[in-house]
Amino acid sequence: MQKDATQEQIDKVNQQVKKLGLTPVDIPGSQRIAIGIIGNTGPIDPELFTGLDGVKEAIPVSKPYKLVSREVKPENTVIEIGDIKIGGREFTVIAGPCAVESLEQCITIARLVKKAGAHLFRGGAFKPRTSPYSFQGLGDKGLEILAEVRNQTGMLIVTEAIDHEVLAEVEATADVIQIGARNMQNFSLLKRAGKSTKPILLKRGMSATIEELLMAAEYIMAEGNHRVILCERGVRTFADHSRNTLDLSAIPAVKALSHLPIIVDPSHAAGRRDQVIPLSRGALAVGAHGLMVEVHHDPQHALSDGPQSLYPEQFAELMDAIRKLSSLW
Amino acid sequence: MQKDATQEQIDKVNQQVKKLGLTPVDIPGSQRIAIGIIGNTGPIDPELFTGLDGVKEAIPVSKPYKLVSREVKPENTVIEIGDIKIGGREFTVIAGPCAVESLEQCITIARLVKKAGAHLFRGGAFKPRTSPYSFQGLGDKGLEILAEVRNQTGMLIVTEAIDHEVLAEVEATADVIQIGARNMQNFSLLKRAGKSTKPILLKRGMSATIEELLMAAEYIMAEGNHRVILCERGVRTFADHSRNTLDLSAIPAVKALSHLPIIVDPSHAAGRRDQVIPLSRGALAVGAHGLMVEVHHDPQHALSDGPQSLYPEQFAELMDAIRKLSSLW
Amino acid sequence: MQKDATQEQIDKVNQQVKKLGLTPVDIPGSQRIAIGIIGNTGPIDPELFTGLDGVKEAIPVSKPYKLVSREVKPENTVIEIGDIKIGGREFTVIAGPCAVESLEQCITIARLVKKAGAHLFRGGAFKPRTSPYSFQGLGDKGLEILAEVRNQTGMLIVTEAIDHEVLAEVEATADVIQIGARNMQNFSLLKRAGKSTKPILLKRGMSATIEELLMAAEYIMAEGNHRVILCERGVRTFADHSRNTLDLSAIPAVKALSHLPIIVDPSHAAGRRDQVIPLSRGALAVGAHGLMVEVHHDPQHALSDGPQSLYPEQFAELMDAIRKLSSLW
Amino acid sequence: MQKDATQEQIDKVNQQVKKLGLTPVDIPGSQRIAIGIIGNTGPIDPELFTGLDGVKEAIPVSKPYKLVSREVKPENTVIEIGDIKIGGREFTVIAGPCAVESLEQCITIARLVKKAGAHLFRGGAFKPRTSPYSFQGLGDKGLEILAEVRNQTGMLIVTEAIDHEVLAEVEATADVIQIGARNMQNFSLLKRAGKSTKPILLKRGMSATIEELLMAAEYIMAEGNHRVILCERGVRTFADHSRNTLDLSAIPAVKALSHLPIIVDPSHAAGRRDQVIPLSRGALAVGAHGLMVEVHHDPQHALSDGPQSLYPEQFAELMDAIRKLSSLW
Repeated sequence: MQKDATQEQIDKVNQQVKKLGLTPVDIPGSQRIAIGIIGNTGPIDPELFTGLDGVKEAIPVSKPYKLVSREVKPENTVIEIGDIKIGGREFTVIAGPCAVESLEQCITIARLVKKAGAHLFRGGAFKPRTSPYSFQGLGDKGLEILAEVRNQTGMLIVTEAIDHEVLAEVEATADVIQIGARNMQNFSLLKRAGKSTKPILLKRGMSATIEELLMAAEYIMAEGNHRVILCERGVRTFADHSRNTLDLSAIPAVKALSHLPIIVDPSHAAGRRDQVIPLSRGALAVGAHGLMVEVHHDPQHALSDGPQSLYPEQFAELMDAIRKLSSLW
Repeated sequence: MQKDATQEQIDKVNQQVKKLGLTPVDIPGSQRIAIGIIGNTGPIDPELFTGLDGVKEAIPVSKPYKLVSREVKPENTVIEIGDIKIGGREFTVIAGPCAVESLEQCITIARLVKKAGAHLFRGGAFKPRTSPYSFQGLGDKGLEILAEVRNQTGMLIVTEAIDHEVLAEVEATADVIQIGARNMQNFSLLKRAGKSTKPILLKRGMSATIEELLMAAEYIMAEGNHRVILCERGVRTFADHSRNTLDLSAIPAVKALSHLPIIVDPSHAAGRRDQVIPLSRGALAVGAHGLMVEVHHDPQHALSDGPQSLYPEQFAELMDAIRKLSSLW
Repeated sequence: MQKDATQEQIDKVNQQVKKLGLTPVDIPGSQRIAIGIIGNTGPIDPELFTGLDGVKEAIPVSKPYKLVSREVKPENTVIEIGDIKIGGREFTVIAGPCAVESLEQCITIARLVKKAGAHLFRGGAFKPRTSPYSFQGLGDKGLEILAEVRNQTGMLIVTEAIDHEVLAEVEATADVIQIGARNMQNFSLLKRAGKSTKPILLKRGMSATIEELLMAAEYIMAEGNHRVILCERGVRTFADHSRNTLDLSAIPAVKALSHLPIIVDPSHAAGRRDQVIPLSRGALAVGAHGLMVEVHHDPQHALSDGPQSLYPEQFAELMDAIRKLSSLW
Repeated sequence: MQKDATQEQIDKVNQQVKKLGLTPVDIPGSQRIAIGIIGNTGPIDPELFTGLDGVKEAIPVSKPYKLVSREVKPENTVIEIGDIKIGGREFTVIAGPCAVESLEQCITIARLVKKAGAHLFRGGAFKPRTSPYSFQGLGDKGLEILAEVRNQTGMLIVTEAIDHEVLAEVEATADVIQIGARNMQNFSLLKRAGKSTKPILLKRGMSATIEELLMAAEYIMAEGNHRVILCERGVRTFADHSRNTLDLSAIPAVKALSHLPIIVDPSHAAGRRDQVIPLSRGALAVGAHGLMVEVHHDPQHALSDGPQSLYPEQFAELMDAIRKLSSLW
């Protein structure tokens, strides 16, 4: 629509879309509003719209995703979480332990990552685990601890939801809802996340293509939640020197196709502490909007994924490197 | 336990397990009962049990999975679905369309696959689709159609559940509940499936190791549902001559490690019709317990996955090949 | 060309091709001769040829390979090695140890595999090894032993050439020259193999697409050697239950695109003995033209790749299975 | 050996090694000499050596590679090529076209990359090509052109050798001999490269593990050529948004295990120009010692791999980014 399009003009376009048996979706941008059309199985004649008042142009979208696409919304989406902005010029660091173990553990880690410069606190209350006999997280008790961490430190909270029921609880407690790699194509959960009022951090599946990742984000956006942060976390390959192979080329590839912010999780990709700092520097340098990184005050005694958690002094070193690199852009 | 162990002796062993703070699980076999112990984080002294009356031996299980393991239950599990037995000497064929489109379509296909010799009917009422804008299945209406197919043809029904809510509906209607590749590590759904009274057909994830597949089955069994059928359906690789790379070595690998039956889905692995018959013959020859294969009376006009659906005459040819090969074993 | 085309007519076509600055290649078939054209970078007008005497039709070839392509030569190529025919209705078994260790070892194994029904003897005199410090084979001495095995048992010999120099020696001694997976894109060696008078057994590279495999065969054929046998031997994936992932869908895929015979090496794919028999049965059932399989009279003391070598009684069991399965086709 | 060990003491150690039937290899370091032992199949008693005069310590090497290993030589190897040093603090950029097309083309590109700050010139005279019908490079004529580029611009030359014969020619003309990804396990060629006096640039194979890459370098070093530069260039995966998946975690992994320098080729990994600059920045940030990048003055008309070649102004932008990033370390 034109910059000065009136609500009446917008309504007319919406009606025109509905007359064709299709669904209009408002996509607000910083300068103007766009109206996406979904539900069509083939091309639509642009002239059905270009003649209407207030319409600037009608752009056929060549990709299977629409709301996610940079063709529909050329400028970057910047997602605000309290004072933090993800997707703009600032590089955002989400840090914390793999699993919430106790209030004391979380407060200790939150204070040290905050002091080092982290922006958001992460910690798993509900852990998707390969074995039914492994520690599955503290559950509700873990969410209470996370809320208390926010109270005491002021850090906003990112934590994972593993099903509909947990998502409702996380939605009530956390500031960002994480959908893990194993659930990236749990379409039912994606639809539920799309109805949430909280931003969604969506991790790439272990063998997902970029198109599949963007389609998963489209599921969320198609339900009305436009605040989606993507996350590259490594893919499964034959390589055995890291747990998964971090695919940093996904960053420029996603940025070319989509306006959504994309961050990197080097901890789960590497599965070993000694690669986390180099890969974090690499993530910033290829153009990611942020990092999610595991830190523990005592990795040797962590209940979950100790081998990849950074020691406090390593995290401080990482934040130093990030400040230096960020100053270049 | 010994063959003639009494219920009292079994109870004593269970009490001993609970005294250690662990969980006993009864695993009935054809000859005797075994009692699995779960919840231990390290080895347990076998002598705590070998002195008890009725105990034959105490076997330490070296794998991360227990109920699934052939170490715990050496003989094959045979799962009965009506008159059909999966996991025994007979080779079971599950056939039908990718998606339920209409009653007429399903009845047509069910009659022709039944006539050709198929054992169970498959058809998706709820389809997990990469795009939110693709046909997602007829839903509840599809389940009604499947029930009607059973009424009219006598064929028992396999169909997929994609979340808790759908699982409850499928459980009420179908004879076997399918968990798809994308949900293989949706642990919340696996736990729910473990509480079902219906057998579960669990497909291998697109980049799942055999250990992860068995652990997913362990999630189901740990909740009490011991009727799990595994399914190899191809893994993601660089290869582009088939949609996924069918990994037939998974069949002997799974059979060495687990007592559960394993079948093969050549249709989704190949993604193209011309490989389905050779790969089906291969599946039987490597020792799979059965096949799940897509058939459509008019693949050119199928609403979903037409390129891989067999034509009726191809399915008849496939069943002929299977009969010939089966006669050798 | 038409069935009764004269040499003069064939020459005219060849001249016409050369006039266009391109290269004609005679491709003899069982019924008629075809003339392939190579060197063109774009399509050629078929009418330049259809008007010439003796020309049946001019077929544009849509693939990047030509001599290999079934479009150019629709009927299967059957390669004769002594009395053995690979590519026809009979299933060919090549068996022997990974490495030639001694004359005694080779004679022992050759006698037992011959007795069990193997068609050709394999054994490595020059071994491509990941480590420079591993046993690299007996070299020239190994070739002499292989020649002596043929003398004493009558079995024809397949052995690997790893560079130009070795290829010349292998060519002088062996009956089939093997090019290993690691050399599949050693184009210089392929060209040299193309000048040989011996048939070439070309193994698929560990991450080669089917198109790349066919192009490698095209390198050999373009130099004049049309006797190429392809071999699927597993590809690199994340899977860890077998050394590589045997891709049996490669068999129907190759047979659809090419007239060349294709066999399967289950031993190197699996890397473990217990999968070799099931995968061999699978190879026959998907339509491979033969097998190459490792057998050792004493695998525990083999100098090379013991874990995958079959014991003599296992090989006998395998040959029994093959005879039964073969009787079905 | 101790810093002040005499030649006589060194000779004694060498004799002791030979007495055990093993092979000693001198490994000169900046401070002291080390003596590697190769040929042993099991552990050797360190006390056989620690008692000898001049011996500082006897270190058992736990890896299958020795000369390559950081256990044997803890400090980085810095390779000098004229005034250029690879492996030290400076970040080295090798730039030029995919293929040598003409003297004019090469001079044009060499001048522009030199002006922008590149350190070495690359260009293929012998091109390994998937198809026998593709442009295979200018061959000897290409080598003459490269020599002339050095004469006119002063830039030293990196070019690929594809077999023994070509290696001898490249050795006579170029300053660095490249072994391509497809030849990484062409062990015969590696041994020949090990006898060369020129440094070797060894590219990681498309599905090679880090251990295999290091073992390939060990082949070269075991023949006496210790000047090996490793190169990460992407691995084959299912991902389709780049030609191969650049594995930047290989950089810290290699640096932890080996003292050899490692550089990155983002051009072949990405296969598309728009990812080359971000991935180059990422390569520097993860700690690579340099880059090899394709540049063409007119990519639209390049004879080979145009889609990935940078335009001159993009290369200048890349060099600017590198200068900024380098200033941080």
